[in-house]
Amino acid sequence: MSAIKIGILTVSDRASNGVYNDISGREIERLMGTYLTSAWEPVYRVIPDDYDTIKRQLMRMADVEGCCLILTTGGTGPAPRDVTPEATEAVCSKMMPGFGELMRAESLKYVPTAILSRQTAGIRNRTLIVNLPGKPKSIQECLQVVFPAIPFCVELINGPSLLCNEEVIQIFRPKSS
Amino acid sequence: MSAIKIGILTVSDRASNGVYNDISGREIERLMGTYLTSAWEPVYRVIPDDYDTIKRQLMRMADVEGCCLILTTGGTGPAPRDVTPEATEAVCSKMMPGFGELMRAESLKYVPTAILSRQTAGIRNRTLIVNLPGKPKSIQECLQVVFPAIPFCVELINGPSLLCNEEVIQIFRPKSS
Amino acid sequence: MSAIKIGILTVSDRASNGVYNDISGREIERLMGTYLTSAWEPVYRVIPDDYDTIKRQLMRMADVEGCCLILTTGGTGPAPRDVTPEATEAVCSKMMPGFGELMRAESLKYVPTAILSRQTAGIRNRTLIVNLPGKPKSIQECLQVVFPAIPFCVELINGPSLLCNEEVIQIFRPKSS
Repeated sequence: MSAIKIGILTVSDRASNGVYNDISGREIERLMGTYLTSAWEPVYRVIPDDYDTIKRQLMRMADVEGCCLILTTGGTGPAPRDVTPEATEAVCSKMMPGFGELMRAESLKYVPTAILSRQTAGIRNRTLIVNLPGKPKSIQECLQVVFPAIPFCVELINGPSLLCNEEVIQIFRPKSS
Repeated sequence: MSAIKIGILTVSDRASNGVYNDISGREIERLMGTYLTSAWEPVYRVIPDDYDTIKRQLMRMADVEGCCLILTTGGTGPAPRDVTPEATEAVCSKMMPGFGELMRAESLKYVPTAILSRQTAGIRNRTLIVNLPGKPKSIQECLQVVFPAIPFCVELINGPSLLCNEEVIQIFRPKSS
Repeated sequence: MSAIKIGILTVSDRASNGVYNDISGREIERLMGTYLTSAWEPVYRVIPDDYDTIKRQLMRMADVEGCCLILTTGGTGPAPRDVTPEATEAVCSKMMPGFGELMRAESLKYVPTAILSRQTAGIRNRTLIVNLPGKPKSIQECLQVVFPAIPFCVELINGPSLLCNEEVIQIFRPKSS
């Protein structure tokens, strides 16, 4: 059985130019490593804040590389180059507004500028795409609140079972209706 | 004076196939019976999770049968066949994001998978359409928090006055501006 | 250096007809006066609830008059003439869902009909546009919770620095990433 593939897409002009190291994408990879007990491998990439490049990478990770989950970081703010939510929406057939709402509500406990984050989530065929914030600390805060719903969501779109370390993250699956 | 018509639309492949009974639509009808003191009658239908069928039924209930309010149940999750929010948006001229936000926030008190619900609400001419969750327990939880705003909303779109049993549900109408 | 321009756009059939005074727009102007220590001037206008008129005024305030921030009041409810959010979205390239979410959550502390408000916010080039509610009391409640994030947002879209009276309103700027 092949390992479950999870896309980690860092969207950042500066990280992709080598101006600084991509600590955000690496933080997502580290967190997934602590959450998951299923065999998995990251499909990891760092790209600039370019609408077409983001779309192309999301489609490739979903359609060609078979990621059941893609976690993006960066490009969700109000600045002119921030277009990750728009690119995400462009490749999804279904949007999941609850992810952005909960992440913003969680981040608001720490900073009032959380309302400037435009994070969203959506579904492309069998792939769930979730935008995470840009900073490692915010990534952890947000992932902790939305991840408990992710394994069940991936199953609903006919993806693999993501098994998790319940001592690190409490996953929830409702009883079938 | 004719009775107020309220649409109850159960969207479910299995309930429409007769695989199981529609306990969700019946729960909405029961709750409306406890809330409303105005004379009313349900316009009740069970249909499959099909985009065009949902749109057609919403339009018929609104335009032909004159429902001032349509409450749907089912089809709001992330699964491929879940398209109730998309069909709702397609027939509405105005969306009401506050309904979905509040229902998800309320459901989050019980289950972290509440963020997977894509429920929305919108207005088609003189009809308010509200997506409710699929399970009877969640229907009651959600309806209890959004219903207090519904009679005022129906009045604002030139619908009838929905009178309620204040011992069961506290309706709110702001003083006119 | 010229004063910072802030658009205050009252959208109301009755106020624009002279049926009543525009106390809402004046309340926004008063609040801005208490918040800001930077030199600023209001670009103030009262217009009817007409989609094309709202769009035209928003574009003029942003593109011709150079407002870095436009605060609207009125036209965000479910009534047939309420089209301020639609006109706002039509002139923006980027939507900021966190503003509406937080304003509705705040207003919900006071009235359950807060979910009927369809307020949003968005960005048009170098201008942040924020829909506020129609009533002076609600304007103050909402502005108090979203304003702390506004000066940083305006800077991110290459607008001027809005300096504020920290005894009246606590502005937040995250440390640069």
